[in-house]
Amino acid sequence: MPGRWPTSTPGPALAARRRRLREQLQGPALLAAGWPRPRNFPHNCHPFRAESHFLYLVGRQLPGAALWLEPGAERLYAPPPEPEARLWHGPEPSLAELEAELGLEVRPITELPRAETAATLPPQDPTAAEWLSGQLGRVVKASALPSESADVALAEALIALRLIHDDAALAQLRQAALVTCDAHRAGLRATRPGLREAQVRAQMEATIVGAGMTLAYWPIVTADGHILHAQRHDGVLAPGDLLLADVGAETPEGWAADVTRTWPVSGRFSPTQRAAYQAVHTAQAAALAAVRPGARYTDVHRASQRALLQCLLDLKLLRGSLEELLVCHAVALFYPHGVGHLLGLDVHDMEDLGDRAGYAPGRARQQNPSARYLRLDRELQPGMVVTIEPGFYQLPELLAAIEPGSALDRALDREQLARFADVKGIRIEDDVLVTDAGHEILTAALPSEVDAVESAMRG
Amino acid sequence: MPGRWPTSTPGPALAARRRRLREQLQGPALLAAGWPRPRNFPHNCHPFRAESHFLYLVGRQLPGAALWLEPGAERLYAPPPEPEARLWHGPEPSLAELEAELGLEVRPITELPRAETAATLPPQDPTAAEWLSGQLGRVVKASALPSESADVALAEALIALRLIHDDAALAQLRQAALVTCDAHRAGLRATRPGLREAQVRAQMEATIVGAGMTLAYWPIVTADGHILHAQRHDGVLAPGDLLLADVGAETPEGWAADVTRTWPVSGRFSPTQRAAYQAVHTAQAAALAAVRPGARYTDVHRASQRALLQCLLDLKLLRGSLEELLVCHAVALFYPHGVGHLLGLDVHDMEDLGDRAGYAPGRARQQNPSARYLRLDRELQPGMVVTIEPGFYQLPELLAAIEPGSALDRALDREQLARFADVKGIRIEDDVLVTDAGHEILTAALPSEVDAVESAMRG
Repeated sequence: MPGRWPTSTPGPALAARRRRLREQLQGPALLAAGWPRPRNFPHNCHPFRAESHFLYLVGRQLPGAALWLEPGAERLYAPPPEPEARLWHGPEPSLAELEAELGLEVRPITELPRAETAATLPPQDPTAAEWLSGQLGRVVKASALPSESADVALAEALIALRLIHDDAALAQLRQAALVTCDAHRAGLRATRPGLREAQVRAQMEATIVGAGMTLAYWPIVTADGHILHAQRHDGVLAPGDLLLADVGAETPEGWAADVTRTWPVSGRFSPTQRAAYQAVHTAQAAALAAVRPGARYTDVHRASQRALLQCLLDLKLLRGSLEELLVCHAVALFYPHGVGHLLGLDVHDMEDLGDRAGYAPGRARQQNPSARYLRLDRELQPGMVVTIEPGFYQLPELLAAIEPGSALDRALDREQLARFADVKGIRIEDDVLVTDAGHEILTAALPSEVDAVESAMRG
Repeated sequence: MPGRWPTSTPGPALAARRRRLREQLQGPALLAAGWPRPRNFPHNCHPFRAESHFLYLVGRQLPGAALWLEPGAERLYAPPPEPEARLWHGPEPSLAELEAELGLEVRPITELPRAETAATLPPQDPTAAEWLSGQLGRVVKASALPSESADVALAEALIALRLIHDDAALAQLRQAALVTCDAHRAGLRATRPGLREAQVRAQMEATIVGAGMTLAYWPIVTADGHILHAQRHDGVLAPGDLLLADVGAETPEGWAADVTRTWPVSGRFSPTQRAAYQAVHTAQAAALAAVRPGARYTDVHRASQRALLQCLLDLKLLRGSLEELLVCHAVALFYPHGVGHLLGLDVHDMEDLGDRAGYAPGRARQQNPSARYLRLDRELQPGMVVTIEPGFYQLPELLAAIEPGSALDRALDREQLARFADVKGIRIEDDVLVTDAGHEILTAALPSEVDAVESAMRG
């Protein structure tokens, strides 16, 4: 039977977003959807994915379209379907049908006037950047940060909206989260020694594709969990390996999930793997306990770090006091990344705007090893969705870089660490909605407790 | 057990290609690999796929690299691995290791001198086009056709090489073909009424991803086979439907397969579906019989058209004589596309150069309905690989456009056609190597006879 299938955001929900944005505008704004990007020749393109700000306000993948907004008006400009395209691509909605579906005035893109006063946001598509440069009479560079003051004001207005997810956005995020949980369950069940990493990845991806979604990002499915963004899937799984899978679905409208689990290839964690897994799970629980309205995300990050450090002390991988270990950034040796980030239309939501969305005004990244990779420093509010994803890794580069005789060198018990040689990398990542009451784990359908993970592998 | 796994083209085979190209060069040439394309923010890119001409000569996916060729010298310029990237992406080969592996001098990209006299080919990546414009001191536009005479000469030299596949290329094409056959078998076995098209697509794609390959193009998996390039996969399969799947794998080095099969969702063709399928199969057999060295591909195309027309006469869908039907282009009503195209690193090989590769010098597309979509008009030579892919479709747009009282109108039996209502579209496509003796079907591992297709669905 056909399973659940992604739904579209209704026109009125999109109209409400545009109305709220227009209330913040000082002048006109123009946002491009972008064009399909030729992969190896013009007719063979990467799958089209519109720019996120456009998707937030229009909700449809419309190549070559652009949204025009003014305080008192809004209009979608789109290329009319070409008659010959019908033969090759089947019937596409006419502009009138699009207008009726979206409840938004739609005109042919050729009628869009040049608008030298309009604000915009730099798109990721270089062709769209060139097109916007022509329309606006100024240079718009692809993948750049907004710098003109009108563009910065538009960015701030969009950030304020997109930080707090409305019901329609949450409906999309929940769909992506559920399919992603299914995909991880498929990966858990498919894993066995002798397979390639790619074969487990394939089963996870098939769950996502079969559910009408796409990957939100390049999937990590690796027995080399210590390579934080491992891109290869050619390794053959050995019985003693841990498999780390960081895989998330994206709905047809572009809303993402981002989930990581780590499981034993043999179906049973070794004692050291189990101990390390439980340390990461404890760190995740500590972070989750801190997720509530008003909490500062840096405190969530630190809660996970302190909990992990205490576990590493208990496991005798580190020695000394918690406070000493915090001072010498011992946590960053095993857990060098942030506890998570914003999640929405982008897996790192609004990262096209740099740290402007993740960092509250007046805040910037700290440069110390414990915090420099943290992508979010805001007070949490109901409606925000964040990931919570602590990890534990044996990173050869970082271990080799410890200065002999340093505080970190004295804190580390290398003999004990050698006993954990079968733990290359573990990460546990869930997607979490901040609610009035505290939080809700959107990916709770996927178990994370050590016994439940083993049990899910048996199907 | 890990199955077959894609191999890399050995350095000496790549060196031989470069040597043969350099023998044709009048001056220097610079070919860019391209960069990863940001999808929705700079760190979330489409999977990187280097430009095909670069891959042909270097064989490795090297973002940001460029190949410098002169009659007497060759050099690869590449970005050295960044130290911090090791933490995130794991160890990458140093430039010295790359040099040893490829047997090609490798230097840091920063040492590449500006070269205003070098020829190039327009890349698909706009960032690469901008970079080349800077290096060459002239405007190079992405996805454009070569127009400067030095660029055209470079294109012609590369076409001459890439038209005739060497053993290393054939090894890659065979690997892609075999995995693609496996993928179609997975699709045949997975199909049942009530599934979404996406669920069958997912199983086919999983076979390709699990074998360490990627999709060579956006897959067509549709019960609406009459939509020639149907892009959606959301339809629910009904027992009486035919499912048309046009899905091909691409090796990690970029070599493609391109295969179509059409099968009954219920596992059994209806009598009309069986008759129409056999008509297409007969047309394919007639085309294959014509594939041999020296044959002109337009004659292969016409052989498939004549065979299909004769079948349509036999099925009483058309009336009149074969010659009359050819004159009024009746075949284009049911089979409006070409019998196939070149296959290699691109699924439409070298289509980045427009028709320059597909059409022999002095030839151009005919504008009549029977030939205008044909992508290839050359005499076949041993070492060429082409697709052979006739089809039969009921195309509402074309049927509605028939002029009342025209020869076509008189030839068509609409009552008889109505009895074939359960045949929306059928295509059978294989990948074929021209050999000294005639040809070899690279995708022969996948059955195409009507009974064999039914039998493959039972597993």
